[in-house]
Amino acid sequence: MNKINLNSKLKLFSEHWSPKVIAEMNDYQFKLVKLKGEFVWHKHDDTDETFMVIEGTLNIEFKDKTVRLEEGEMIVVKKGEMHKPFAEEQCKVLLIEPRGIVNTGEHGGNLTAENDVWI
Amino acid sequence: MNKINLNSKLKLFSEHWSPKVIAEMNDYQFKLVKLKGEFVWHKHDDTDETFMVIEGTLNIEFKDKTVRLEEGEMIVVKKGEMHKPFAEEQCKVLLIEPRGIVNTGEHGGNLTAENDVWI
Repeated sequence: MNKINLNSKLKLFSEHWSPKVIAEMNDYQFKLVKLKGEFVWHKHDDTDETFMVIEGTLNIEFKDKTVRLEEGEMIVVKKGEMHKPFAEEQCKVLLIEPRGIVNTGEHGGNLTAENDVWI
Repeated sequence: MNKINLNSKLKLFSEHWSPKVIAEMNDYQFKLVKLKGEFVWHKHDDTDETFMVIEGTLNIEFKDKTVRLEEGEMIVVKKGEMHKPFAEEQCKVLLIEPRGIVNTGEHGGNLTAENDVWI
């Protein structure tokens, strides 16, 4: 059990839309990800998913609204809820979700990242 | 699904060692807590527990070492692991753990907080 410094971990990679696991709590994972541009509409039918903004601004588009998250803000996206993240400028985010969740949900496509990549 | 601003939520209470729920993800809860002074040695036999420092310095004493966490740092305390948090000055922490976990674990005592209190 060692402590984890989020900013130190964020320096270890630069690619976008490619979550990196930094810790596990039971069968949940903490993943850092850098986002820029538009992601795909998708959902996760089996689980909620938490986004916490570490730096920058993250927008998440839902069917009925868009939520704009700044540093120090978080949201829990409920299971089954269609959503599309986008960020005008690079944004650094901590994801918390069960191990094994695919970033593009049921959508798939070329933004699907390799899972369970640790840094 | 609304966003949650951690600092706004932290302004809503002042007492120490009394976690307040701000969000749920499946059967897990996000709880803010303000710590100052010494907690009790305890463990949670059924679950890991995550501490993330929002402001200040949090020390967690283990049987073989003490970990000192600053803002932007986190640790996952493994299930069954004895630990004792302490903070020389007030420290603001985000806890992430399954719903229903008692703050003092198996220890009990007068620092045991009411559970499932939302702000």
